[in-house]
Amino acid sequence: MSLVVVGSVAYDGIETPHGKRERALGGACTYIALSASYFTEASIVGVVGEDFASEDRHLLASKGIDLEGLEQVPGKTFFWAGKYSDDMNDRTTLRTDLNVFADFNPKLPASYVRKPYLFLGNIQPLLQRDVQRQMPALRFVGGDTMNYWINDYRPDLLEAIRSWDFLLINDSEARLLSGEYNLRRAAQKILEMGPNTLIIKRGEYGAMLVRRDSLFMVPGYLLEDVFDPTGAGDCFAGGFVGYLAERGFDLRNGNFDVHELHRAVIYGSVMGSFCCEQFGVERFRTLTRKDIDARFDEFRRFTAF
Amino acid sequence: MSLVVVGSVAYDGIETPHGKRERALGGACTYIALSASYFTEASIVGVVGEDFASEDRHLLASKGIDLEGLEQVPGKTFFWAGKYSDDMNDRTTLRTDLNVFADFNPKLPASYVRKPYLFLGNIQPLLQRDVQRQMPALRFVGGDTMNYWINDYRPDLLEAIRSWDFLLINDSEARLLSGEYNLRRAAQKILEMGPNTLIIKRGEYGAMLVRRDSLFMVPGYLLEDVFDPTGAGDCFAGGFVGYLAERGFDLRNGNFDVHELHRAVIYGSVMGSFCCEQFGVERFRTLTRKDIDARFDEFRRFTAF
Repeated sequence: MSLVVVGSVAYDGIETPHGKRERALGGACTYIALSASYFTEASIVGVVGEDFASEDRHLLASKGIDLEGLEQVPGKTFFWAGKYSDDMNDRTTLRTDLNVFADFNPKLPASYVRKPYLFLGNIQPLLQRDVQRQMPALRFVGGDTMNYWINDYRPDLLEAIRSWDFLLINDSEARLLSGEYNLRRAAQKILEMGPNTLIIKRGEYGAMLVRRDSLFMVPGYLLEDVFDPTGAGDCFAGGFVGYLAERGFDLRNGNFDVHELHRAVIYGSVMGSFCCEQFGVERFRTLTRKDIDARFDEFRRFTAF
Repeated sequence: MSLVVVGSVAYDGIETPHGKRERALGGACTYIALSASYFTEASIVGVVGEDFASEDRHLLASKGIDLEGLEQVPGKTFFWAGKYSDDMNDRTTLRTDLNVFADFNPKLPASYVRKPYLFLGNIQPLLQRDVQRQMPALRFVGGDTMNYWINDYRPDLLEAIRSWDFLLINDSEARLLSGEYNLRRAAQKILEMGPNTLIIKRGEYGAMLVRRDSLFMVPGYLLEDVFDPTGAGDCFAGGFVGYLAERGFDLRNGNFDVHELHRAVIYGSVMGSFCCEQFGVERFRTLTRKDIDARFDEFRRFTAF
């Protein structure tokens, strides 16, 4: 069933030990929607400038992504550039030009309003809240955030996430949000803030899903070559929500099989791992659902005991 | 079936954010044997000084550990002191007094010679080799090492591990030994050095087991309080070999269920996690096999999808 994704659409300059791209299609919303498109219809809410290339629009459209909510306005598309360390565990931001994204005010097309699933990418928390308020028929809503909003917009963020079904962040964000270093304690505190489900991404070390009554952990997929980790966390999010949307999952109705949530974490991990295999969104040009399901099975094999 | 463990028996001075111990029973051999004793009869080969306390000897004996190979000589027992960082991911060595351990030359009692299982703790590689040569009826032999031997005694180390069935080291040691940062590549290179099975410990992030034809990964157990990580890696080793010994596992006969090796990794993880719950070896005073099996089942639950 149909999923609405809100967030940044951008161009990225990327440098890793494997090479360099001056200007590649990027942005959280782009990665999330591309990843989710293997499971469900994804509808984008974002903004781009006049420089947004028609080939990039075509790539998204070729995956069945609904672009009605992708606004094009005068000015330039959000541009970010960064460089990864040799082991790719750190990256330095070289440039951030918000451009048209600075005034992003998500506009929900009428055709999106009754859609059942919403994923709120990392943007100003009150904008996240406003989008959610316009969608009265949600079967789940969740989102991402980042250190900037946690530090400087904490009351807004707490208000936004109070009514989310799930929060999907990385380990350092979980520590910052909760004030607890230990992830088990951090998770308990965050579950008191509203979401019934917390997913913590741990990069190469995998991910975990925590609810009041259950815990699930999965190690990271061991790639032989990590070309470019950009977007891996967003692809994780896209695989996670995409799978739940495909299954028609209702997080608001307590009567479900928690293993479906665990499988969604595996699909998230699978999508994050594929993302790292080539620069930017390149891997999605050739990736098939068959590849995805094969790697899901591989996860079963390498975690079985 | 009976397991011989060779390595250091020591006293440790430990400081963590949770407290301090001036002088606690420690040493790799101690932790490995204590951990393995929950699964099989463990026989120690080590050396201590005149200061070795009878209560510590009694603790080991109370777990059925065979102390015939624990030599007591004039001088003082190996002493190590260290302090952990606030997040306990780093530790600083404050003092290392090798004392009687400086001249450790493992002497195998006649009653040990025909035992089927041997785990060689981290000591000089040629000493490891010499012990192994004295045991003609082995059904498996494996061991640990450290950066010092990898860097400064590389030819000796390569000679020693060539005939091991398994090598059990941590991720930074695997990178150092192989010259590869990527763990998948590192593992492939190490498997060409002799061992058919490589186990890589990743601390709080879990562990992996790699063979030519299979890969197994498990996330770390998520403790709410890590009191003291000292010895956790050695307890992992003890759980791993202890379980295999209990099952009468023969790593030299290719005809086995690889899932048994995976379950041994889980038992290793279980024992490592218990070790962190109290200072030094304290947790083993009260730990029962029932506790261990309950945590094994917990691992099943939190990795099931």
